[in-house]
Amino acid sequence: MADQYTIHFGILGCANIARKVSRAIKLAPNCTLSAIGSRSIEKASKFAKENEYPDSIKVYGSYDAVLDDPDVDAVYIPLPTSLHVKWAVLAAEKKKHVLLEKPVALNLKDLDIILEACENNGVQYMDATMWMHHPRTTQMRGFLSDAHRFGQLKAVHSVFSYLGGDDFLKNDIRVQPDLDALGALGDVGWYCIRAILWANDYEMPKAVTAWREPEYNEAGVILSCGASLRFEDGKQASFYCSFLSNLTMDISALGTRGNLRVHDFVIPFQENLGPFYVTANSGWVGMSIGCDPPPTEHLIKTDLPQEALMVMEFSKLVKNIKVNGVAPERKWTSISRKTQVVVDAVIASIGKGFVPIEIN
Amino acid sequence: MADQYTIHFGILGCANIARKVSRAIKLAPNCTLSAIGSRSIEKASKFAKENEYPDSIKVYGSYDAVLDDPDVDAVYIPLPTSLHVKWAVLAAEKKKHVLLEKPVALNLKDLDIILEACENNGVQYMDATMWMHHPRTTQMRGFLSDAHRFGQLKAVHSVFSYLGGDDFLKNDIRVQPDLDALGALGDVGWYCIRAILWANDYEMPKAVTAWREPEYNEAGVILSCGASLRFEDGKQASFYCSFLSNLTMDISALGTRGNLRVHDFVIPFQENLGPFYVTANSGWVGMSIGCDPPPTEHLIKTDLPQEALMVMEFSKLVKNIKVNGVAPERKWTSISRKTQVVVDAVIASIGKGFVPIEIN
Repeated sequence: MADQYTIHFGILGCANIARKVSRAIKLAPNCTLSAIGSRSIEKASKFAKENEYPDSIKVYGSYDAVLDDPDVDAVYIPLPTSLHVKWAVLAAEKKKHVLLEKPVALNLKDLDIILEACENNGVQYMDATMWMHHPRTTQMRGFLSDAHRFGQLKAVHSVFSYLGGDDFLKNDIRVQPDLDALGALGDVGWYCIRAILWANDYEMPKAVTAWREPEYNEAGVILSCGASLRFEDGKQASFYCSFLSNLTMDISALGTRGNLRVHDFVIPFQENLGPFYVTANSGWVGMSIGCDPPPTEHLIKTDLPQEALMVMEFSKLVKNIKVNGVAPERKWTSISRKTQVVVDAVIASIGKGFVPIEIN
Repeated sequence: MADQYTIHFGILGCANIARKVSRAIKLAPNCTLSAIGSRSIEKASKFAKENEYPDSIKVYGSYDAVLDDPDVDAVYIPLPTSLHVKWAVLAAEKKKHVLLEKPVALNLKDLDIILEACENNGVQYMDATMWMHHPRTTQMRGFLSDAHRFGQLKAVHSVFSYLGGDDFLKNDIRVQPDLDALGALGDVGWYCIRAILWANDYEMPKAVTAWREPEYNEAGVILSCGASLRFEDGKQASFYCSFLSNLTMDISALGTRGNLRVHDFVIPFQENLGPFYVTANSGWVGMSIGCDPPPTEHLIKTDLPQEALMVMEFSKLVKNIKVNGVAPERKWTSISRKTQVVVDAVIASIGKGFVPIEIN
C-alpha cells in the first residue's frame, strides 16, 4: 500500500521496455506508478490498457503533463537516446528524480548536461542498467574481491549479442541514426563496457582501441563492434557486441588465483535465479592429464526481479532525499559517466582509424 | 601386442611432457615405445626407470643414437623450441616420421625448413596439439557446421592461461630467451590461435593486431599477451594467453543462430570426459524478463585420452606410408603452418608498435 513514503513514478513514453519497468514499479514495495505520458493520449491510453494499469494511474497526452504533475516524484525515461537531453533536463528542472534508460546519451557532452541539471536541481540520477541490482552481482563482486580465491584481476572479456531480424536491422529505433545513433554499441555494448568497469571496480582504462571493421546497416549505424581496453598494471579487457549473432551475455574475468564466468549477466535465463561459475587455485592432475578443481556453479536466488530491485534502490534514494533531506547518491552518476566516457572512446577510436584513445 | 604394423616410437629428450606422451604411446594400440635418448645416458636411464619403461626399450645417451636406430619409425620431439630445426630436420633426413611438440618453431622460416625436410624425405609431420584429437573436438565441429543451430560464425574468443610461480617465471624452459623465446605466446597462445583457426575452419585471418602492453619477464620473454584478428565478412576473433593468471582454457564461438562454449578445451578436467555447452535459436521470454533456452551441456566420453588418440592417428598415417605406400597426410602440415603464420603476425605486430599485420 502506498503511504507518505512511497515514491510516485511517472513514465515518459510507451517504449516496449516501459512494460517491463512498469511491472517492476508494481512489484517494488516502496514505489508506485502514478502517471504515463505519450505524445498522443490515444497511444498512452492504449498502453495503459494493454498493461492493465489501474484507473488510478493518470494518462497524459504529452511528456510535459507528466513533468507538471505535482504528485509525480520521479520519472523513468525510456525515450530514444536522442531525446534524453531535452527530457531528462526538463525533468530535473521540474524537480523530478531521473531514472534514465541506457544508452543514457549520444555522447559525454550530452550526458554532462543531464548530470549537471540533476546536480543543480538536487534530484537523484540513475541509469537503468538492471543487472547491477541483482543480488548475484553483489555475490560475484565478493568473489572478485577475494584475495585468496580470485587474487588480482588480470583480464576481462565481455560479450552481449542478440540476433536482430531483417526488419529490426532496418527499422528498429535502436538502429535509426536520428534516434539511437550508437546502435549496437549503445544498446548492447553499453552492458559490456559496464561489466568491464564493474570487474575493475570502476578503475578507468588507460586507453581504448576499437577493433577494425565494425559492421553497419545501410544508414551507417553500428550493428556489431568490439574493442580492447588497457588498464594499469598490464590488465587487459575486451568486448564484443552485436545485433548479428545469437543471444550471448557473457562476462569472463581472470584473476591470478581464480576465474569467474557468467553467461546471462544482462538478463538471467530464469527471473528468480542467477547462476555464476567460479574456479579457484586450479592445478594440473598427475602428468597434466587432467585439472582440478572444475568450475563450481553458484545459484543466487532473488525474490524480486533485478529491475524491481533497481526501482526499489532508486526509490530508496529518492525517499532519502525527499523525506530525510539527504543529498543524492552520486555513485550512480559516477558509474554512468565512466561508462559513457568509454563509449565515447570507442566511437573516437573508430572515427580516427582505430587508433588507441587515451583516457585521462 | 606389437606386430609388423606397429609403429615404433623414439623420444628425443626427457622433458616433463614426454612422460605424458610415452604413456599415450603405451595406451595407443597401433604403436609402441622403442627408444628414449637424452644428452646423457644417466638422465635417459633415470627417466626410463621413473616412468617404468620395460627393459626392452632402448636407452641412449644421445639424440643421434635414437635417429640412427633402424627399429625406430617415428620420433616424438619435446625439446626446447630453439632445438627443433636441428633435430626435426635430422630426424626427417634419417627417414623418421616427426611428431613435434608445440610451439613447433620460433618463426615461420624455421618451420618451413622443418616442413621442407619432411616433405623431401616423405615422412609424416604432425604437431602435438592434443585437443585436436579428442572426440569432443569432432562433436563441436559438427555443431559449428550446423546451419540451423549455429549458423554462420561471427566471432570467437579464446583464452589459455595458467599461473606460473616465481621460480617458473624466472627459470622454466618456457621463459628462457635462448630456449623458448616465444614464451606464453608459444606455450599457451599457440592453443588459442589454433582454436580460432579451427573455429574458422582454417580460413586465415585478413589481419592480426596485438594488444598493447604485453607483460614480460626480466629476460624480455612474453608472460602474457592478447590479440585481435579480423576475418572476411566482418568475422572477429580475439585471444588472451598468460602465465600470470589462474588456469583458464576457454573457447567461446558466436554464430548467427547459436553459440558454443568450452572451458577445458586444452586438457579436459576429467581425462575420459569432455564437456561443451551450446545454445541455439535463443529468444527472450515475455517482456524480456528471461531468455530461453539455457545452454545445454554435452558430455563426450572417450576411452583413450586425447594424447593417445593423437599418437594413434599419427601412427595410422605412418603405417599408411610405410606399409601401403600412401603419401604423407598434408592436412597437419597445413594447420601447423597456418598457426605459425599467426604466431609470427602477433610477434610482428608487437615489434612494429601494435599495428595490424596483414596476412596474405
